[in-house]
Amino acid sequence: MKPHYKVNGRIWIETEDGSFLGNGRVQLLENIQELGSLNKAAQAMEMSYKQAWDLINSINDKSRKPLVITQTGGKGGGGATLTPVGEKAVKEFHAVRKKFNKFLKEQKIHI
Amino acid sequence: MKPHYKVNGRIWIETEDGSFLGNGRVQLLENIQELGSLNKAAQAMEMSYKQAWDLINSINDKSRKPLVITQTGGKGGGGATLTPVGEKAVKEFHAVRKKFNKFLKEQKIHI
Repeated sequence: MKPHYKVNGRIWIETEDGSFLGNGRVQLLENIQELGSLNKAAQAMEMSYKQAWDLINSINDKSRKPLVITQTGGKGGGGATLTPVGEKAVKEFHAVRKKFNKFLKEQKIHI
Repeated sequence: MKPHYKVNGRIWIETEDGSFLGNGRVQLLENIQELGSLNKAAQAMEMSYKQAWDLINSINDKSRKPLVITQTGGKGGGGATLTPVGEKAVKEFHAVRKKFNKFLKEQKIHI
């Protein structure tokens, strides 16, 4: 039987300084938006708090304005919220990913 | 200064049974085409012979006709050549990657 070939892939947004946003980071931002806490956002994707914190710093460092604002202290390590820039970044990523998924579906492989 | 955001990514061809061809595998096929030997092809990309052999088996197993034919025995482990199907697969991958590079360049990110 002839196999069915499909093109698949992944995309990310980067700056001159390296990776800015990919699937994992966007998922983390969405979790923060939903849960209001970096700790809970990390837990929801089985990521350590330290790892999530490093990712958020990497994201904020590459933007003129921060995408996430964290409030330190308090029970559970304080809250975290997406800024308007953060919300826009999530939307932009989804928009590009949607176009990318369309691109992938359009590719026909004949080998 | 406002950072310059760029969309980047990678693509591969897969079947129902998993990954068929990506950048690394296509590079291996091209090395085989150029060097006529699986051993030399592997060496040229700092891959072990075993690893290259496994990749070629994985590629051949997912195709109705083999992409690579190996001749066992002789000095240096025998020769390896691309079949017409193998040559076609390399061309198809490059064609899709070219379209993908165009897609990437067209994406504008405003955050």
